[in-house]
Amino acid sequence: MFDEIHEECGVFGAYRLPQASLITYYGLHTLQHRGQEASGIAVMDQGKISIQKGKGLTIDLFTKESLKKLKGETAVGHVRYSTAGGQENANIQPIVARGLKEQVAVVHNGQIVNEKELRVELEKEGCIFQGTSDSEIILHNIQKEKGSLYERVKKTAAKLVGAFSLIVMGEDELIAVRDQKGLRPLSFSKMEDGYVIASETCALDILGLYEHTEILPGEIVRFYKGIVSRERYALPSFQYMCAMEYIYFARPDSDIESINVHAFRKETGRLLAKNDWIEADLVVGVPDSSLSAAIGYAECAGIELEQGLVKNRFVTRTFIQPTQALRDRGVRMKLSPIKDVIEGKRVVMIDDSIVRGTTSRRIVRLLKEAGAKEVHVRIASPIITSPCFYGVDTSTKEELIGARMSEEQIKDYIEADSLKFMSVEELKEAAGHVGLCTACFDGAYCTPLFSYQEKLEN
Amino acid sequence: MFDEIHEECGVFGAYRLPQASLITYYGLHTLQHRGQEASGIAVMDQGKISIQKGKGLTIDLFTKESLKKLKGETAVGHVRYSTAGGQENANIQPIVARGLKEQVAVVHNGQIVNEKELRVELEKEGCIFQGTSDSEIILHNIQKEKGSLYERVKKTAAKLVGAFSLIVMGEDELIAVRDQKGLRPLSFSKMEDGYVIASETCALDILGLYEHTEILPGEIVRFYKGIVSRERYALPSFQYMCAMEYIYFARPDSDIESINVHAFRKETGRLLAKNDWIEADLVVGVPDSSLSAAIGYAECAGIELEQGLVKNRFVTRTFIQPTQALRDRGVRMKLSPIKDVIEGKRVVMIDDSIVRGTTSRRIVRLLKEAGAKEVHVRIASPIITSPCFYGVDTSTKEELIGARMSEEQIKDYIEADSLKFMSVEELKEAAGHVGLCTACFDGAYCTPLFSYQEKLEN
Amino acid sequence: MFDEIHEECGVFGAYRLPQASLITYYGLHTLQHRGQEASGIAVMDQGKISIQKGKGLTIDLFTKESLKKLKGETAVGHVRYSTAGGQENANIQPIVARGLKEQVAVVHNGQIVNEKELRVELEKEGCIFQGTSDSEIILHNIQKEKGSLYERVKKTAAKLVGAFSLIVMGEDELIAVRDQKGLRPLSFSKMEDGYVIASETCALDILGLYEHTEILPGEIVRFYKGIVSRERYALPSFQYMCAMEYIYFARPDSDIESINVHAFRKETGRLLAKNDWIEADLVVGVPDSSLSAAIGYAECAGIELEQGLVKNRFVTRTFIQPTQALRDRGVRMKLSPIKDVIEGKRVVMIDDSIVRGTTSRRIVRLLKEAGAKEVHVRIASPIITSPCFYGVDTSTKEELIGARMSEEQIKDYIEADSLKFMSVEELKEAAGHVGLCTACFDGAYCTPLFSYQEKLEN
Amino acid sequence: MFDEIHEECGVFGAYRLPQASLITYYGLHTLQHRGQEASGIAVMDQGKISIQKGKGLTIDLFTKESLKKLKGETAVGHVRYSTAGGQENANIQPIVARGLKEQVAVVHNGQIVNEKELRVELEKEGCIFQGTSDSEIILHNIQKEKGSLYERVKKTAAKLVGAFSLIVMGEDELIAVRDQKGLRPLSFSKMEDGYVIASETCALDILGLYEHTEILPGEIVRFYKGIVSRERYALPSFQYMCAMEYIYFARPDSDIESINVHAFRKETGRLLAKNDWIEADLVVGVPDSSLSAAIGYAECAGIELEQGLVKNRFVTRTFIQPTQALRDRGVRMKLSPIKDVIEGKRVVMIDDSIVRGTTSRRIVRLLKEAGAKEVHVRIASPIITSPCFYGVDTSTKEELIGARMSEEQIKDYIEADSLKFMSVEELKEAAGHVGLCTACFDGAYCTPLFSYQEKLEN
Repeated sequence: MFDEIHEECGVFGAYRLPQASLITYYGLHTLQHRGQEASGIAVMDQGKISIQKGKGLTIDLFTKESLKKLKGETAVGHVRYSTAGGQENANIQPIVARGLKEQVAVVHNGQIVNEKELRVELEKEGCIFQGTSDSEIILHNIQKEKGSLYERVKKTAAKLVGAFSLIVMGEDELIAVRDQKGLRPLSFSKMEDGYVIASETCALDILGLYEHTEILPGEIVRFYKGIVSRERYALPSFQYMCAMEYIYFARPDSDIESINVHAFRKETGRLLAKNDWIEADLVVGVPDSSLSAAIGYAECAGIELEQGLVKNRFVTRTFIQPTQALRDRGVRMKLSPIKDVIEGKRVVMIDDSIVRGTTSRRIVRLLKEAGAKEVHVRIASPIITSPCFYGVDTSTKEELIGARMSEEQIKDYIEADSLKFMSVEELKEAAGHVGLCTACFDGAYCTPLFSYQEKLEN
Repeated sequence: MFDEIHEECGVFGAYRLPQASLITYYGLHTLQHRGQEASGIAVMDQGKISIQKGKGLTIDLFTKESLKKLKGETAVGHVRYSTAGGQENANIQPIVARGLKEQVAVVHNGQIVNEKELRVELEKEGCIFQGTSDSEIILHNIQKEKGSLYERVKKTAAKLVGAFSLIVMGEDELIAVRDQKGLRPLSFSKMEDGYVIASETCALDILGLYEHTEILPGEIVRFYKGIVSRERYALPSFQYMCAMEYIYFARPDSDIESINVHAFRKETGRLLAKNDWIEADLVVGVPDSSLSAAIGYAECAGIELEQGLVKNRFVTRTFIQPTQALRDRGVRMKLSPIKDVIEGKRVVMIDDSIVRGTTSRRIVRLLKEAGAKEVHVRIASPIITSPCFYGVDTSTKEELIGARMSEEQIKDYIEADSLKFMSVEELKEAAGHVGLCTACFDGAYCTPLFSYQEKLEN
Repeated sequence: MFDEIHEECGVFGAYRLPQASLITYYGLHTLQHRGQEASGIAVMDQGKISIQKGKGLTIDLFTKESLKKLKGETAVGHVRYSTAGGQENANIQPIVARGLKEQVAVVHNGQIVNEKELRVELEKEGCIFQGTSDSEIILHNIQKEKGSLYERVKKTAAKLVGAFSLIVMGEDELIAVRDQKGLRPLSFSKMEDGYVIASETCALDILGLYEHTEILPGEIVRFYKGIVSRERYALPSFQYMCAMEYIYFARPDSDIESINVHAFRKETGRLLAKNDWIEADLVVGVPDSSLSAAIGYAECAGIELEQGLVKNRFVTRTFIQPTQALRDRGVRMKLSPIKDVIEGKRVVMIDDSIVRGTTSRRIVRLLKEAGAKEVHVRIASPIITSPCFYGVDTSTKEELIGARMSEEQIKDYIEADSLKFMSVEELKEAAGHVGLCTACFDGAYCTPLFSYQEKLEN
Repeated sequence: MFDEIHEECGVFGAYRLPQASLITYYGLHTLQHRGQEASGIAVMDQGKISIQKGKGLTIDLFTKESLKKLKGETAVGHVRYSTAGGQENANIQPIVARGLKEQVAVVHNGQIVNEKELRVELEKEGCIFQGTSDSEIILHNIQKEKGSLYERVKKTAAKLVGAFSLIVMGEDELIAVRDQKGLRPLSFSKMEDGYVIASETCALDILGLYEHTEILPGEIVRFYKGIVSRERYALPSFQYMCAMEYIYFARPDSDIESINVHAFRKETGRLLAKNDWIEADLVVGVPDSSLSAAIGYAECAGIELEQGLVKNRFVTRTFIQPTQALRDRGVRMKLSPIKDVIEGKRVVMIDDSIVRGTTSRRIVRLLKEAGAKEVHVRIASPIITSPCFYGVDTSTKEELIGARMSEEQIKDYIEADSLKFMSVEELKEAAGHVGLCTACFDGAYCTPLFSYQEKLEN
């Protein structure tokens, strides 16, 4: 399903570490798959924040020189998949408040569903917003509460409904928070005399830190005066980790709630094969994200795994799309079949999900064009039927093929010889002890939706 | 071995095609793995050449607007891995001669070994060179010969010794040439009323053109007045296709001399496993180029294939390398092990080649750090012992670990539990009917080396 | 004194004009002498604001395409001379508030002296500041007041102490305000069915609009529903137009309070000559700003005006300054004497002001080096002895040569044969009916200084 | 006439000077008025040339870092006004030949009229041209001759017909040449233990070097082994210094053939006034280039000199021109009248030349719009009737208003109340002992024109 779903963020924090900005740079680089549109790093030095942020990949935006200017031992960073709309620059994170007494920076992954309600309330009290992001709302609320920064963040977290993994930077202080349902991941590790915090454990691993502590749902963790203190700001709740983190977003080498992402995906492949016997010659995964599931499927089904599709590694956003006329002549850019592998074969094509169906249809056609005798599509997730309001860009209901068509109709639309999705139950089985949010599959939203309820009903 | 060996070019040509520059853009994008440093497109319109070239990826360099300005139905393009040295811009291709009578553009993949001899001769006759590339020498020689452009190119080709796949653009004319030994690939396909030529067939496939004609070693092919004519400019010779094209450079979906690159690599994996029984739990390929060989090895050895290493897709040249201090703390950026997969396992790690050995050692260490009980390294090519003078950047003999150490010593150096390379004979077996140049493995250069002989002997 | 004093802004507004963004572009271009560091334009279209702003000259920042994207018939623009300090981007204007009910943009020229007091108050009420500019404070205050946008702007203006010429943009509404003392200029003209507002009349003239209305000190003017309404928000006060606007900042073709700037400067030259008879051969003005005064001096003194100094038109901020070693060898870049004109002559050199004295000394030396027999410096303004807190960047008292030295000492420092400044009285005479703020000459600040008082006393 | 005529170059050389590249940077910056489109510097260090060149102003193109990379004690530099056409980059100077034995760089100011003839000859001998400039031809010819670099340059100079001031850089060697007619200026000065060479003396002055030696027409000067040797390569001829250098191109502080440019211009103004009595109130020069002539006119006529027009200093090429609709409404960008000065006055407007007449008409209209009662235009040069083939971009004959209209008709076209040009005789009088090329005024070309003859006759 590649390039059809987008998450909007990855966050990173470094506490009491020399070269905090450089470490954050490496962290953001490793989280880049969570957002390629914009990057930013803010550092705190003696109560003053320096910041650099802008559009582009972390490694394109920052240079040795620019990192040197970001002095300080405490830092927060952010990568972002930007949504459409004017003046996006005002939404790039970290977002900074420069008060007379103190300076504060915030990075945020997720989406607040009572955003409008909070915004109205804050505006009534006279807040002025320069951008349109919910991160600005969080920052304003933090500043409006009473008490120390830690107390204000805690009060703010208790008011927020939805998905959020936050890191707030004050003077010699980082505060990390996860929402009550645990929708978005957030972990930390000790590093020398300090700490690093990251959306995914892969960004800790690359620093040689294999011991991770996951921040709990509803927990607030304070890195202050050199030590860590942990506290719950909300009542315990059943966990609702976003299923899409496991299925698509996270890097295979990350662990989420102690379950390895690659292992999860392999297990979905295995479960797909278990109750679905089909005669075929090859299993082909759609690169890159479906490779793990394909390995699991091939192993369980006893069918040969093959590399039947090649992905162009150099595709970026600035790419000039082929016109329809060129497409009709067969021109395509991102994926190519290996004809030698595919020709004359019955292929099981494993993909991680189907959103609009257009990409799946294109790949099926590619395989047929390359001579596949049959193409059996197996999707390592259930049918997406409902939009997400917790930070995944699955846009509107109308664009979701699964909201309009049955499995059989989708099969016809994508021109496959057969099609199977996983059931929600199978998916939950793959997650073992981890509770999943499966709202996009079954509409079971784990929080009230406030003004988004209306959007859902239309 | 990824990022240790570089080839220097990919070439593309479009003849009598509306939107020739756009088609060339797609072609170069698909050949981008052959060179990421610079790109260029020249088009011919009524005897006049327009050109755009510069540093950067094809998709970053060209825009819809800039392609529109490259009007004309005949085009040549080039992607380049640039060598070090001043004023590189003068070496970016295509190179153009703007005479009073006619304008000519040349693109070139390969390396001429009698370059200096030709240069001296041309300078004696008064030629002035602005850059340092052998492509400029080829262009000058073409212009100095007598007769039509076609005759001049033919005479020039006969003088060149070494590796070259050339495309020359004149008015309503493309001329494609391959060296006598067939060291570098070059193919073409009919497209509508015109033709496209490319270094690799993957760049023809993506245009929906699955029927390819390989230009023969020692052949010159003229696309002129709408038709193709083929002729030999040199005596037939045994073929010496660069083995590295199969092993590392080419995209797995390309066919070279009718042998699919992925299939070749899978076969090398199979051959590695065939005579080498080892007890292990997992086969892990070093991404991306070793995946095919890993599939072949796993299949033949009956050991489970696993995705044990994850590569960061966003690494580019501008990347800030971790300092030694950070490296010592375990920081690394490009590859990460999946601990969950590796821990406690005996791993067969498949890589395509070893150049300096430092990368292999780093990966072995990564796997051990992630808990691998044993790491057995299998290399899907022979030991590299000699430099290449035919366009592969294997630099000097001193940097080649295989020129200084035995297999056993290399094993110790890279800290593997065991190490096996392929034999040159096994490699040739995988190539079937295709004759290979294996000079980098056995020093059997297929041409005289002229002034490079001296470099070899030191 | 060129390049020693900087003002910080020029503002422009366009109301109910098709191509409002293009007209604003021309307006800002004409106000560019008031600030070259950054430019910005915001337009209002059906309640939504689009904005483009960034570092650089207006003509470098905006393109035809980018202006087309700034759709709407109401616009505000700003040019800025940026002060030092981190994250300057947050201070570039226009500054926008994006509320749920309405969007508002503000541009501001001047400096508020009760800035800190307002900031503390606003922060107490929970405002969060992202930048460090007083413009953000103005915007926040506007949003915090009660009532319609117009009422809120009016209440805000009444709270502000210091120098400000503001334009506020709401939906189909522009509101222009000048401070009670009238320190910074602001005028408007009718254009077709709409209006344009500008810091200087030269930006109205270039649109072919020679009929200007100056906004009065303490006045608020509303452009709303197609008509203009004017009202006073503050009690009348004696006027204190910034003398530096006449002396240095404004373009010679601007009128300020109906007095032409060139005419004012010529008059200062005349007054300088009137009571100061000196035998000399030539009058030379330091280009560009002192030419008007030189004409006046030459005319009144009956001494020949000559072009003795040539200014390099291509100097910009990125210029590499000559090292001291090169300077000692006589290397200099911006001004050159015409030796042929100067040699053997007694020169009256007219400059508009002296700030640190280093530039004056350099020019005197240049003239002597070119053979001037005598150099008599005449300054078309009084000695600067006090810093400005109303928007002129005369930095700290220590840097002002006039705060440390007498006229005689300055004469010796700049190595002139004689030196004369104007008296404050003469300056006021040149301004005729217009009351001037002469605080930088005599310390007579026209408002309380709040926290700046302290800075003054140190 | 500003922005209607363009010259194409300025050249600079530094010999045996530490920081040669930095000195060249300052030199080029001072010659920037001769070409703003592109800049380049090449330095020689131990037989190897390093080069940086590109589009843009010298100060925008080079940084401290980039100049540091240009190591070496010998340098040549170039500023260029680029002509239209594809692949301009190949024409940016310096142009470098990188041979096996030696490397050579060339910079060139002027235009060769037997360019095509030389090109054909060189192409016959097999030379290949990458660009379209005559500088490349000169370089090729130098390399094709026999003997030492000095001998080859000398032989080449003897073959060239037209206007050229050349600097050629070899190893520890600079060779400077001026054409036989002396059409373009070129001077040098001793600086410490080395030398600097420049198109105009203003670029020597700014280094503190007021002692200049003008290279003679037909002379070749060699800076070699630390000393200077001078020789004639051509027979003496009457001098034909380009009149436009005095009238428009050169900076007023430059001396050409020992006559100061400002003094020349002032004299043209004086001569214009001498035989032309007219009753008027003001003399206004069109900035910047006509100020000198205006001073001369005012002085001689006894009419007050005024600054009636203000030029926007920030106009660059990227400027968005007002549409005709906006122009019709009076919008204009570059020049503004000072209404206060002009209104009700009879104005003598001094300009340096008229090319197409459109600019003059625009300025006359501006002055009338600002209330001028009468506008009497006086042009400090004769009517331009013929194109230039010696390096001045006066384009085609059709575009020259003087080729199509009489003085009376031009007067009507530009809507002036009266109009007077200088006679060619008066111009020559102003030049004193210096022989002028006045071909653009009287068609008396000082060399054969070769293939350009034809262009002239059409």
